[in-house]
Amino acid sequence: MKQRIIEVCPALPMFEYFRTDRAQVIVVVDVLRASTTICTAFDYGAEKVIPVATVEEAMDYQSKGYFVAGERGGIKLDFADAGNSPFEMMIDEIKGKTVVLTTTNGTQAIQMACGENLTVIGAFINLTILKDWLLQRSEDVLVLCAGWENLIGLEDVIFAGALAESLAQEGSFLMNSDETFMAYDLWQLAKYDIQAYISKFSHTKRLISIGQDESIEYCFKIGVSMSLPFWNNGTLQKYIF
Amino acid sequence: MKQRIIEVCPALPMFEYFRTDRAQVIVVVDVLRASTTICTAFDYGAEKVIPVATVEEAMDYQSKGYFVAGERGGIKLDFADAGNSPFEMMIDEIKGKTVVLTTTNGTQAIQMACGENLTVIGAFINLTILKDWLLQRSEDVLVLCAGWENLIGLEDVIFAGALAESLAQEGSFLMNSDETFMAYDLWQLAKYDIQAYISKFSHTKRLISIGQDESIEYCFKIGVSMSLPFWNNGTLQKYIF
Repeated sequence: MKQRIIEVCPALPMFEYFRTDRAQVIVVVDVLRASTTICTAFDYGAEKVIPVATVEEAMDYQSKGYFVAGERGGIKLDFADAGNSPFEMMIDEIKGKTVVLTTTNGTQAIQMACGENLTVIGAFINLTILKDWLLQRSEDVLVLCAGWENLIGLEDVIFAGALAESLAQEGSFLMNSDETFMAYDLWQLAKYDIQAYISKFSHTKRLISIGQDESIEYCFKIGVSMSLPFWNNGTLQKYIF
Repeated sequence: MKQRIIEVCPALPMFEYFRTDRAQVIVVVDVLRASTTICTAFDYGAEKVIPVATVEEAMDYQSKGYFVAGERGGIKLDFADAGNSPFEMMIDEIKGKTVVLTTTNGTQAIQMACGENLTVIGAFINLTILKDWLLQRSEDVLVLCAGWENLIGLEDVIFAGALAESLAQEGSFLMNSDETFMAYDLWQLAKYDIQAYISKFSHTKRLISIGQDESIEYCFKIGVSMSLPFWNNGTLQKYIF
């Protein structure tokens, strides 16, 4: 059996240094909250999600009749139909629709990742289905952590550690880089009481300070989503198994 | 008492996003081995150390009669008087001399850090004297981890965690960013058996594979150096207390 490698890019400015010649699946994660919200949109029937980097693009899509969700600094954009809380995706209105999403960090990370490699969206809520799908494939895996304004978001790093652990446990994945060891070790510290561990993180505090704490607990529920969003020609779609 | 902040930049590509308006001391660390070697050079009587980024600059200095130490990929440069092992600085020959040093990552990190801020060199071997000196000052502290080819070197991150712990214990320093929590938490995992913890790191393995393992243990000896190198107008000098 070919040994596959799982690597972790902990912050966006390091991404360009992770290029390899080997085939990779890139898993983009922004636990709080873009990737959680995207999975939830698909859970509630969205047909496509279009991540856009700028507010202007989002407004442009809205003027064409699209359902637009978005935030800056965690706060819902004035004009948008919804903010970036997964709870705001739990509505009938998005069934069969395309959701346009713009967020402070997550949508930028998705745009950065999308190149020749297959790119999928990871979150704690779809960790189980993501792991099972990755195990059936043959490529290496690189987790791209969206973080916060080019710095590290530990919630994304511990997700990477959780994914690395679950893949390595199956025996076909190797952890051999310092970033992966780091993510794995931090996940060991976090996993027995995630809510306590995350309470000190910058972004947790930021969301609580703007009244968005209700969604935080949901963002760390492992395996409650059955959606695996993947990048296909400019939009995210739900993988059909 | 003014609350001071300690931050950790875990890899060079993130450095530009750590700029603040507050006065900072920048601590550059490359545990394996540039910063350890620089401290050792001063312990053994070097008057100055000039870090240069390129091999060409190092050759140029040698042709002018300077003592030149350097490596690429951990291996001593052919023409150099010494490699980048701290043991190679434990010689009478450097007493009162200027040592020119070029390494794969450490010297680049020093060049990157040196701007308006006061820049000093940190290593496990001078951790005690560095901590005492920082406590007597008033600026915030930013630890710049040199890492390996723009990626993370966990040996540098756990040094940052050790420094953060020792400063925070004194009560005047605050840890409030995810990078600092990360470094602190990893140090908690490492500190009771550093040699075991570092054995999995990429750079430890790299040094062992090229026969440089004898110096690794020395690089993690806390507080054995009495030298605090600081940047002054193009050279490193030993701080006189």
